[in-house]
Amino acid sequence: MYSEKLEKVFGAAGVEIGDIIEVESKDIKIEGTLMPKTEMGDPNTIIIKMKNGYNAGVLYGENVKIRKLKSREKIEFPLSPPKVSEKLPRVAILWTGGTIGSKVEYKTGGVSMIVKPEELFYYIPELAEAANIVFKDVSGVASEDMTYIEWQRIADETAKALNGGARGVVITHGTDTMHFTASVLSFMLKDLNAPVVLTGSQRSGDRGSSDAFLNLISAVRLAANSNIAEVGICMHATSSDDKMHFIRGSKARKMHTSRRDAFRPINDRPIAYVTHSGDITYTGDYRKIGTEHKKTIASTKYEPKVALVKAYPNSDPEIMDYYVEKGYRGIIIEGTGLGHTPTSVTHKGRSWLPFIEKAVQKKVVVGVTSQCLYGRVNTNVYRNLRLLSNTGAVHCEDMLPETAYVKLGWLLGNYKPEEAKEMLGRNLTGEIKERIREDEFLI
Amino acid sequence: MYSEKLEKVFGAAGVEIGDIIEVESKDIKIEGTLMPKTEMGDPNTIIIKMKNGYNAGVLYGENVKIRKLKSREKIEFPLSPPKVSEKLPRVAILWTGGTIGSKVEYKTGGVSMIVKPEELFYYIPELAEAANIVFKDVSGVASEDMTYIEWQRIADETAKALNGGARGVVITHGTDTMHFTASVLSFMLKDLNAPVVLTGSQRSGDRGSSDAFLNLISAVRLAANSNIAEVGICMHATSSDDKMHFIRGSKARKMHTSRRDAFRPINDRPIAYVTHSGDITYTGDYRKIGTEHKKTIASTKYEPKVALVKAYPNSDPEIMDYYVEKGYRGIIIEGTGLGHTPTSVTHKGRSWLPFIEKAVQKKVVVGVTSQCLYGRVNTNVYRNLRLLSNTGAVHCEDMLPETAYVKLGWLLGNYKPEEAKEMLGRNLTGEIKERIREDEFLI
Repeated sequence: MYSEKLEKVFGAAGVEIGDIIEVESKDIKIEGTLMPKTEMGDPNTIIIKMKNGYNAGVLYGENVKIRKLKSREKIEFPLSPPKVSEKLPRVAILWTGGTIGSKVEYKTGGVSMIVKPEELFYYIPELAEAANIVFKDVSGVASEDMTYIEWQRIADETAKALNGGARGVVITHGTDTMHFTASVLSFMLKDLNAPVVLTGSQRSGDRGSSDAFLNLISAVRLAANSNIAEVGICMHATSSDDKMHFIRGSKARKMHTSRRDAFRPINDRPIAYVTHSGDITYTGDYRKIGTEHKKTIASTKYEPKVALVKAYPNSDPEIMDYYVEKGYRGIIIEGTGLGHTPTSVTHKGRSWLPFIEKAVQKKVVVGVTSQCLYGRVNTNVYRNLRLLSNTGAVHCEDMLPETAYVKLGWLLGNYKPEEAKEMLGRNLTGEIKERIREDEFLI
Repeated sequence: MYSEKLEKVFGAAGVEIGDIIEVESKDIKIEGTLMPKTEMGDPNTIIIKMKNGYNAGVLYGENVKIRKLKSREKIEFPLSPPKVSEKLPRVAILWTGGTIGSKVEYKTGGVSMIVKPEELFYYIPELAEAANIVFKDVSGVASEDMTYIEWQRIADETAKALNGGARGVVITHGTDTMHFTASVLSFMLKDLNAPVVLTGSQRSGDRGSSDAFLNLISAVRLAANSNIAEVGICMHATSSDDKMHFIRGSKARKMHTSRRDAFRPINDRPIAYVTHSGDITYTGDYRKIGTEHKKTIASTKYEPKVALVKAYPNSDPEIMDYYVEKGYRGIIIEGTGLGHTPTSVTHKGRSWLPFIEKAVQKKVVVGVTSQCLYGRVNTNVYRNLRLLSNTGAVHCEDMLPETAYVKLGWLLGNYKPEEAKEMLGRNLTGEIKERIREDEFLI
């Protein structure tokens, strides 16, 4: 909500939320739609959505003048969809919700979801110029509530869209678990010959610094114009609006709770950057779209009985027994450093080794990753690492814990345990790299 | 081991491991001790320890000449300890092992631990010029096997050293769990009025690129000369040898499995940098050494029945029951994004909320952090976050999951559950900051 003071100013100027207004101060003059305020923002900052789609915030003070230009449009849905050119590349947008799908109700100031394509084009008319958009509402599940059932549905819809003639697919997604979904899709989508771009936003469209608009239009441009045949995430590369990056799905991670540039490549570099105006620069190695037209296969079988557990000082190795007894078929351990668990029995310390050994003997596939996130696990440096490796656990190279987790669920859904075990430590789609470059740390 | 080719070259030159040699190639000429080779290194690179303590690696090739200058010294322990000046500040080195404590046996090429101070001074004579060193062997436990028992012992020994007249304390430690130890010490050491510096090395002293020497001498210089009254970690700030940084213990994390600059500040900046030659620059806010001489109190009670669990797609909330039934008194959840767990019951999704609620009702203290690591959890942005907060779980601001974990163990060892719960979300020693600066991301 705006401050009482500002509400009075609005009242005096005859201005309502949704009106086109002009705000003028000593330094600037802005024209646009007066946006409502959520509880998060500073109540004395006026938010204006400008014609170019950006929101601007102007701190109210004595020298700030507000003038009404036009009363707010009454938006009546359904609007007619925009004319789209069949000559533009066809891009399917699969809508799963998340912050990017939220819009502000001008009347109530509350946040609700965009579910109709007509609304999307109303908010971002540039979409119709970038591609021939086909819109599909896939699931309204919040990011934190996604499960493998949603992953399967998204994979199926992606394959369907591509086999139905789409040149690329954009998937809007909440940011919390977007990297889990991007990662599992890179395994589920076989013979992929098109860009599949997940995107979202860290700040909803009603906030002055929303990244929703640029992320979505950039994702659509990547899907329409890039020659990348991989699943990846397109989000802000920096905290300003100068460029977005496209990160390989299995190498991406949300590394900040709220920044717009929260998604970072781990042990990798972005595959490409997209500027504000849509120019694409390729910066990493990637699989290119081939000339042979192949059908995309959605291989969506998934074993949900896989756990992701952390090893740490004082940690209780009986957690392995817990999952084994519950019928779990795979466990990914986030170990310390080069892939350690507590290994020796010292004072109050308990070794994980006999528990891992027991799980492996019961055909549970156990993988070891590092909670450092960056770098590679390695069984050769220290004796304790070799002891752990000798239990039959698979050290997962430079794979992210999250990627190892969804990969193991996918492998156990499709292969026998011994095959899954062998494939876990081997690169399938770019999730394991032979070499991490010196500058691929904290990008 | 060196390659067969190199062994022959050494044989022809009459050179043995441990001899002082000169290696000359087109570009360089190096004099120093020929070091043995571990299994990790390139077998054709000659490792020479130079007088200044650094190791250099020279790739053997046709134009490389090797000349013996002096036969290796027969090191007979005990050596006499070096003369130390009582005029220098007294620094206690508490030796807990880890890679930094490893040395190479010239005869076997195997790695063993340095346990005698005489050996330490033999390897790093500069130590005697930096401080009046008092050496104490505290525990030979590998980093991955540390438990709260070792933490308690290290805290006791630190307080003892400081109250016995040491100006500062250096603790050598394996790197895997160094940040857990540094973090818990920041809670255990009360009325701290001196620098307590943890250090270690990512590469053992027999490797060309070892960071052991510079990290240890820099840590000693910080302990001897800085005006910081906090517990922190001193390790390489960059991948070259130009500077080391001192990071607040509760804000530090090992972010890479093998790089020398693996330790990074999270939601913080380094408190200080130390150059190669020992110059200290202060860059962050920190508690300064006060003029009042207070006794350092080791408040070491600790409740080990605390768990660190991760919430992720398809995760099983019954893990909460498991720990509650095992008598656990605290659980830290690594949530997604702003501090979410699965919250809605959708398709196959299961909400964590009733399980968290049940645990809280049984007086188990539940804290929520973010697996993003960077940024702050926030219960105000989304409805699901408020629902989670309403269960009685404590959202832990910008605290690292590892710090929240050791803090809760320490709190429950010393306070009643309701007090511990209140203190968990409140800053005690710098582990929670009111504001994260724009440039404190991926430093």
